[in-house]
Amino acid sequence: MPESERDDRPHLVIVGAGFGGLELVKRLTGRRAPEHDYRITWVDRRNHHTFQPLLYQVATAGLQPQDIGVPVRALARRRPAVRVRVGEVVDIDTAARSIAFADGGSLTYDRLVLAAGAVTTDFGIPGVEEHGLPLKSLRDATAMRDHLLRCFERVSARPVQHDDGTLTFVIAGGGPTGVEVAGALAELIDLVLRRDHPELDLDRVRIVLVELQEQLLPTMGAFSGRAARKELTRRGVEVRLGVGVSAVHADRVEFDDGTVLPARTLIWSAGIAASPLARTLGVEPGRGGRVGVDAHLRVRGIEGVYAIGDIAGTIGDGDALPQVAPVAIQQARHVARHLTAPIGVAGFRYLDKGTMATIGRRAAVAELPFGLRLRGAPAWLAWLVLHVLLLAGFKNRVGVLFSWVWNYVFRDHAARLIIQVAERSPATPPGEDERERIQVDD
Amino acid sequence: MPESERDDRPHLVIVGAGFGGLELVKRLTGRRAPEHDYRITWVDRRNHHTFQPLLYQVATAGLQPQDIGVPVRALARRRPAVRVRVGEVVDIDTAARSIAFADGGSLTYDRLVLAAGAVTTDFGIPGVEEHGLPLKSLRDATAMRDHLLRCFERVSARPVQHDDGTLTFVIAGGGPTGVEVAGALAELIDLVLRRDHPELDLDRVRIVLVELQEQLLPTMGAFSGRAARKELTRRGVEVRLGVGVSAVHADRVEFDDGTVLPARTLIWSAGIAASPLARTLGVEPGRGGRVGVDAHLRVRGIEGVYAIGDIAGTIGDGDALPQVAPVAIQQARHVARHLTAPIGVAGFRYLDKGTMATIGRRAAVAELPFGLRLRGAPAWLAWLVLHVLLLAGFKNRVGVLFSWVWNYVFRDHAARLIIQVAERSPATPPGEDERERIQVDD
Repeated sequence: MPESERDDRPHLVIVGAGFGGLELVKRLTGRRAPEHDYRITWVDRRNHHTFQPLLYQVATAGLQPQDIGVPVRALARRRPAVRVRVGEVVDIDTAARSIAFADGGSLTYDRLVLAAGAVTTDFGIPGVEEHGLPLKSLRDATAMRDHLLRCFERVSARPVQHDDGTLTFVIAGGGPTGVEVAGALAELIDLVLRRDHPELDLDRVRIVLVELQEQLLPTMGAFSGRAARKELTRRGVEVRLGVGVSAVHADRVEFDDGTVLPARTLIWSAGIAASPLARTLGVEPGRGGRVGVDAHLRVRGIEGVYAIGDIAGTIGDGDALPQVAPVAIQQARHVARHLTAPIGVAGFRYLDKGTMATIGRRAAVAELPFGLRLRGAPAWLAWLVLHVLLLAGFKNRVGVLFSWVWNYVFRDHAARLIIQVAERSPATPPGEDERERIQVDD
Repeated sequence: MPESERDDRPHLVIVGAGFGGLELVKRLTGRRAPEHDYRITWVDRRNHHTFQPLLYQVATAGLQPQDIGVPVRALARRRPAVRVRVGEVVDIDTAARSIAFADGGSLTYDRLVLAAGAVTTDFGIPGVEEHGLPLKSLRDATAMRDHLLRCFERVSARPVQHDDGTLTFVIAGGGPTGVEVAGALAELIDLVLRRDHPELDLDRVRIVLVELQEQLLPTMGAFSGRAARKELTRRGVEVRLGVGVSAVHADRVEFDDGTVLPARTLIWSAGIAASPLARTLGVEPGRGGRVGVDAHLRVRGIEGVYAIGDIAGTIGDGDALPQVAPVAIQQARHVARHLTAPIGVAGFRYLDKGTMATIGRRAAVAELPFGLRLRGAPAWLAWLVLHVLLLAGFKNRVGVLFSWVWNYVFRDHAARLIIQVAERSPATPPGEDERERIQVDD
């Protein structure tokens, strides 16, 4: 549409289709959106929004990838002000107000909102990048699923007398992701793979969850940490606190207490850093590579650029907020207001509505406002209801609900297919090669 | 289970979890199975049964991969006589009665049933193997889906003035797969991508279906061929009859009538050959690499080995049967009878219950017994009902039905995610590398 190129309306570019970017698009173009005359380009390097809190269920074959992904173009439909651009942003020229894509394209902006999220970081620990399995995208999740299932097929096909670590699964990082993966993996093995592999002695399986701090779920209270530890231990997970990973090899994991474990799986949920895009802004990034913002989430020292969600760091003179979906969503709402009617908008304040993590069937922990703490079945039910409500797209909600009811009733994980999609299709459109190689996970 | 290794029962090995292998396992272990004392090992190089007739819908984002795949181990549950072995068979020693796996393992058998299906063949046409997109597995289907969607993203991201072939889709082979892919792709573009990409002029899209013979659906009657051609033409597909592909390059396709088309997509549905496993038997394979069998589907000249489905060729002095699911299923039933009570079983006879191919919404062709021919909506309804009934697994039936109703009502293909799973997961279990490299698609 050459017309839109010559469009006189101010051009708002939103980079990222995660929780922050999606909420911002909704707020600016929904039925109750404030009046404004922005034309919007919505950028993501994937063609879909990913409901990241449920990635661990795709990785453990409880859900299908499409259950928690919605095409960005489907989300942008019936929003004529929004144009979608799928591509990876590799550089930002804040003087020229333009962004450059890995495929060679570029866009100029009048206002830019960076909602590009975070990437996995290995803190320089040797072997993590090479051997660790991250969990930030549907691609990661399906690769993890294929790997986990293949470990069991491998031992079934060629039984070994000594333990070569194929059935030892180390999970590094005891935050919500690590706890949820550990619980879901224990359940997959106990309820599903035990029946799938009657020929195997699954008591040999070891799931080891290591956390550097002295409690699980370190961002939550001691109550939740203890409850999670108890539930996981009951499900056969070995929880090691105050221990870090010091090196990873193809067949073993070394810990910083000097111990070594034969293991061919290291699930890496120990650390994230802001998207590398933050480093292209020309301002000094803060802790975790996040960019400092003012009270209205504008990147300090740069005109016309906002940062929200995982990529945003300290706000004014305050602290950085946790890198969780509710922060990104609330920040998106603030930026929507500030972009359209900046006069009289009070500075951003985060309203913490609580934290949750699930461990398995009828087991979760939740910390709600007013000191309300839940664990076990009530927390699990609250978690279920909330996550179904939060899912974008009616079809996804129905699909996830159906899969959950199915899995619960039949103790089944029907999505346990090893599909192993080729990284590149045989016929690759021009220029795709380069883009794929430099693609990183957000 | 070392006991089963020392088991005295005769060992029946079934290679293949397609329609033939699945039917055989069901017949030998179902509630109404005849009495027998075989212990059964069921082998496939994938961990799932694939409902191949619907692969084209996964490739065009109408269905999710898991909708048409069922884990082999789920199918083997509650069948205590059956043990599953996931692995690729690379050699058969008929003298020692043993089969060898790519991962180094082996198995001995007393009776062997080869139901290993067929693979795509390029007839030696240059460039097909390198650039052609086959459609024989879920891996192929998801790679094709990612590729097709990426072509549109590519043109959206970087509009080109001249036609570089990115939106020209050539489909080689006018059999049921080619016709179904062409129709589904036209529908995906017209109903879904046209709304997804308002910035593109989709009248530039070309879908070209070429068939070497002088009619579409050459295995069906002229009536069906004409009906399919008319429906596809109405949907904007260019049908070229009597034309073959002579060479494929990254950016163009050459045809044997001397014409050349700029195109970056060649979908290859022009030919299959029997699984290469047939060549390891030490008998001279027949046309299409298929092995000749006697009236009871035993491989001629080899003791204790049966062949059914796409890998089986001429029967006795008769002709080879079409390589379609009903043949494999009926042959599996015959072998089940012959394995358990060989005395007095009459020679195998194929009962042709008809052929169907679907073209799109309310359009299909069907040839049924007694000269009954259907086209349009009645054929389409018959096709829908039959395919839902044939799907293995209750959850798959519900999932497919839900997706179909959704797609029909909302003219949507919600599964259009570019997931692009890594070919190998970062941490690969020992020995997997070799297996993956030699893996071919069946």
